[in-house]
Amino acid sequence: MKILLIGGHGTIGKRVAAAFAGTHELITAGRNSGDVRVDLASEASIEAMFQQLGSVDACICTAGTGYYGDFHTVRQADLMPGIEGKLLGQVNLVLIGQRYLAASGSFTLTSGIAAEHPARNGAAVAMLNGALNSFVLAAAQELRHGQRINVVSPGLVEDSRERYGALFPGYNLVPMPKLVNAYILSVQGAVNGKILKVYS
Amino acid sequence: MKILLIGGHGTIGKRVAAAFAGTHELITAGRNSGDVRVDLASEASIEAMFQQLGSVDACICTAGTGYYGDFHTVRQADLMPGIEGKLLGQVNLVLIGQRYLAASGSFTLTSGIAAEHPARNGAAVAMLNGALNSFVLAAAQELRHGQRINVVSPGLVEDSRERYGALFPGYNLVPMPKLVNAYILSVQGAVNGKILKVYS
Ligand SMILES: NC(=O)c1ccc[n+]([C@@H]2O[C@H](COP(=O)([O-])OP(=O)(O)OC[C@H]3O[C@@H](n4cnc5c(N)ncnc54)[C@H](OP(=O)(O)O)[C@@H]3O)[C@@H](O)[C@H]2O)c1
Ligand SMILES: NC(=O)c1ccc[n+]([C@@H]2O[C@H](COP(=O)([O-])OP(=O)(O)OC[C@H]3O[C@@H](n4cnc5c(N)ncnc54)[C@H](OP(=O)(O)O)[C@@H]3O)[C@@H](O)[C@H]2O)c1
Repeated sequence: MKILLIGGHGTIGKRVAAAFAGTHELITAGRNSGDVRVDLASEASIEAMFQQLGSVDACICTAGTGYYGDFHTVRQADLMPGIEGKLLGQVNLVLIGQRYLAASGSFTLTSGIAAEHPARNGAAVAMLNGALNSFVLAAAQELRHGQRINVVSPGLVEDSRERYGALFPGYNLVPMPKLVNAYILSVQGAVNGKILKVYS
Repeated sequence: MKILLIGGHGTIGKRVAAAFAGTHELITAGRNSGDVRVDLASEASIEAMFQQLGSVDACICTAGTGYYGDFHTVRQADLMPGIEGKLLGQVNLVLIGQRYLAASGSFTLTSGIAAEHPARNGAAVAMLNGALNSFVLAAAQELRHGQRINVVSPGLVEDSRERYGALFPGYNLVPMPKLVNAYILSVQGAVNGKILKVYS
């Protein structure tokens, strides 16, 4: 399979990359990293990436971040990078990418546990993740030619304990192999329109 | 109670208004209708509205719409009015309004059934509604001084049968009194952080 992985050099992405790299043709993409450069916050950049790559059998996105900050002082300006990157970036990846994804190909997006169990200071991220989960339910009904779409919703992952652990007191750490399995299930299984929750 | 109702002259809003008008001090708001003019798509307009009104005991929003259109041709530009109006408009109502809402006051937002059961052509609306549901879960954890927040998620309402029925084949019509009850429960009950689903 020809697999495009946006965010393939991030914390989660590099584990997903390792799972597919040996047995598939893997192409990674990012703003400053990867085989191909793309900024998900730009429709033109996404279109250019697909123009360059042509048809792909699977498109996985582990790119994006959100805003964490005090609910009592957060303003719209703080929310916009997450809306433009993680949310609209992934939505545009599907809206544009559906014309480049092979028949029976799959999209796999990434949301997160905050959609259901937001941590303190995480309202902006909750909003993005909830939006992505519901978008995927709808998109799965619309895609043609056997194309599928799922979203992986990770809890706090093992490999992020140092970076994010303090923000999530009482959250269980997700073992990386268990999380990676959700991406494998989405790409190589038959599931469609699923929110693949991996919370512990 | 001094109750602010944004969208109070819309299909749902006018029924909610009728339920509170006799027994409470009701102030309606909208872009082109209501006691006060506000455009939810503008933070400055929301701030100006609260400056004018001062403290309120309940803030209800039944304003906003989303985009319905062919999934295979929809572009980001089609999504932006819904993101700026229904989504960020309601988010900003809370972020700004928390400084004007009285202690023990309540916010009641409106999402919709598409978050869980999107209709054909409804991916954009699904996204907005999912975002709002998750935002409210997070916001409920953050608000202070006994302030509460809930979101009402309506199915296709009786009064919209002519306008929207054709878009929702097989969706049950929601009786207006049942939907109005969800707004009453949010304003006058003790519930907090709830997605009040009224799907039939
Ligand atoms: N880590 C966790 O515990 C956890 C938990 C729940 C959910 N998540 C979600 O999972 C996703 C990945 O998380 P992570 O911890 O692996 O993030 P990360 O380590 O920060 O990696 C994100 C990757 O995405 C790329 N990227 C970011 N913005 C981009 C853009 N606009 N266009 C293209 N590429 C972009 C970055 O590469 P460049 O800098 O080269 O662009 C980077 O490689 C995020 O959406 C995150 O919210 C993570
Ligand atoms: N109707 C249904 O069956 C149904 C089902 C599920 C969910 N919903 C949701 O429920 C909400 C209300 O639906 P509805 O059918 O009652 O809508 P509606 O009849 O179109 O009424 C919407 C009201 O909101 C006001 N409004 C719109 N955009 C605004 C903005 N940017 N700033 C301030 N006011 C604004 C409009 O007044 P002005 O023109 O004066 O601004 C109007 O009075 C929407 O979010 C809708 O998606 C409805």
